[in-house]
Amino acid sequence: MNRFLQNAIALAKMAEGQTGVNPAVGSVVVKDGRIVGLGAHLKQGERHAEVQALDMAGADAEGATIYVSLEPCTHFGSTPPCVNKIIEAGISKVVYAMKDITLDSPGDEILTEAGIEVEYQHDAQAEAMYTDFFKAKQAQIPEVTLKVSVSLDGKQATDNGQSKWITNPGVKQDVFKHRARHDAILTGAGTVQADNPSLTVRLEGERQPVRVVLARSGHLDFTQTLFTDQQTPVLVYTENTQLKTKEHGSNIQIIVLDDCSIETILKDLYQRGIGSVYVEAGPKVTSQFLQSQCVQTLIIYYAPKVIGGSGKYQFYQTDNVLPLEQTPQFEIDHSEIIDQNIKVVLRKK
Amino acid sequence: MNRFLQNAIALAKMAEGQTGVNPAVGSVVVKDGRIVGLGAHLKQGERHAEVQALDMAGADAEGATIYVSLEPCTHFGSTPPCVNKIIEAGISKVVYAMKDITLDSPGDEILTEAGIEVEYQHDAQAEAMYTDFFKAKQAQIPEVTLKVSVSLDGKQATDNGQSKWITNPGVKQDVFKHRARHDAILTGAGTVQADNPSLTVRLEGERQPVRVVLARSGHLDFTQTLFTDQQTPVLVYTENTQLKTKEHGSNIQIIVLDDCSIETILKDLYQRGIGSVYVEAGPKVTSQFLQSQCVQTLIIYYAPKVIGGSGKYQFYQTDNVLPLEQTPQFEIDHSEIIDQNIKVVLRKK
Repeated sequence: MNRFLQNAIALAKMAEGQTGVNPAVGSVVVKDGRIVGLGAHLKQGERHAEVQALDMAGADAEGATIYVSLEPCTHFGSTPPCVNKIIEAGISKVVYAMKDITLDSPGDEILTEAGIEVEYQHDAQAEAMYTDFFKAKQAQIPEVTLKVSVSLDGKQATDNGQSKWITNPGVKQDVFKHRARHDAILTGAGTVQADNPSLTVRLEGERQPVRVVLARSGHLDFTQTLFTDQQTPVLVYTENTQLKTKEHGSNIQIIVLDDCSIETILKDLYQRGIGSVYVEAGPKVTSQFLQSQCVQTLIIYYAPKVIGGSGKYQFYQTDNVLPLEQTPQFEIDHSEIIDQNIKVVLRKK
Repeated sequence: MNRFLQNAIALAKMAEGQTGVNPAVGSVVVKDGRIVGLGAHLKQGERHAEVQALDMAGADAEGATIYVSLEPCTHFGSTPPCVNKIIEAGISKVVYAMKDITLDSPGDEILTEAGIEVEYQHDAQAEAMYTDFFKAKQAQIPEVTLKVSVSLDGKQATDNGQSKWITNPGVKQDVFKHRARHDAILTGAGTVQADNPSLTVRLEGERQPVRVVLARSGHLDFTQTLFTDQQTPVLVYTENTQLKTKEHGSNIQIIVLDDCSIETILKDLYQRGIGSVYVEAGPKVTSQFLQSQCVQTLIIYYAPKVIGGSGKYQFYQTDNVLPLEQTPQFEIDHSEIIDQNIKVVLRKK
């Protein structure tokens, strides 16, 4: 693999999780074997990676090669299409690592027609990075990561609701890192009531994602930490029209929907520019998400204990019993041991 | 670590799982830097490792050093004490890797009194190998490994009892390897009835462990595979005295106990020379074992799917709800991915 293309992919990875409903893209402009410009798309609505790299290169872009992690875009969004900018800059060759299947007209063809040499060097890393983005864009819903911390026998708490100390400091740090890579953290009203969580990122210098509370019936106590800490905006989804009249802080936005299904909420979040959601909730919301088929990444932390009881707080409970072959299936991405907990990262099959 | 002592430990490992209620021990006799004899204890009642190695060394044992994975024994069991043999053989130095805390009189002292130089080179690998053996011998119960194959949400089957295809060929091969390292495989009458398993080792050249069925109430169908395949002896534990009169094959032994608790059965198995038991059962027997605190090693295979339902077949269910700090705790030994299943090996804390 070409090292400049690797650089472009590395630049994209740096910006992952901060580009909302846009893909993270990196780009490098190379002339006579020297990097003359580099860039990454850093925020939705701002300059694309190619534009930044070309701007940095200035006159050096003439006759240069541009490496991009994703096929250059061809549409007018909040910014003009990148293919225009590449043609205007006098670039002679474009190398990219992943085809953008969501484009109406392929950037590749437009560039070729303009007399530019175009090379598609497919890269597995880039594919892994963009697959979820493509799915999300096509469905117009955010990329969803669901996280649960459970006992070996799959329970989030004892039958009495005791759940503190299931996980430990090492796992918490890991969770903070994941939170920081998402636009929003979503939980249910039950979890807010039971645990009074802040759902923030307690890591030096990291940004705080938006917090989303699913409160279908609207039973909420607006004096809880999440609602009063003013750390980041809080979006509350409810079917209860009365909730709007309840007194609450200015950082809280109440969104009343006729139907608070997972799909409806996700579509609404996407329209608000939320490109990725990290779900941390109790069995009810967790089970709703798993049944919705919208979970692309599932992260389970197993603590090395068995809890028993009747399984009131098993993380996945459904009213319907599906035949085994119709139950949600995943593929293991990887597994690691963190502070005597087993972390398993799975991807939807 | 001395390489000859490592050899002795390696020899012990080769015989692990085939020595019944005796420990697996390896031994090497070295003279002038050359191995002149080696041995391992291969079967309960047969020659100990030291005796085999000394016999092989013959006259060369005179003035030689003997390396043993475990402190030489001092008691008359089915064979005379090894310390006598070592002294008679004219050995000048004994090096061993783990103290045998179950000996009435320490082999170390007896050898030293006989004028032999004795060196205890504690080895972590040897300690790990013998810790469970010591516990088992002191409690007079076999070493217990409990294995479950479950969904990510901790279920052995859907609420309808569908469980086939939870695991896959790679996991099955791994299970065969584990079975072959134990004296007995134990399951419950429910599993026999539901799955009609053979509980054999389908691996070239491996021996078949004894099979044990826990059938408290005695509901068994003696025409099932396990009872008719004549592969190995089958021990049936029951509280039902009528079971003895039911017609069954000659390889089946019915043991009627007043109380078929896990502890009682394990003690009885130990008296019959069963030093290690591998438990593969449904939620009922699995939960009884986990509650008994007799499980030293817990092996969980997680298949990458979530099953949901009400959790009728969650692997660990109890009538009592314990405070979290009193639930069975484990330590992760290691974790690996086998054929898209996560295998987690845990040890009792």
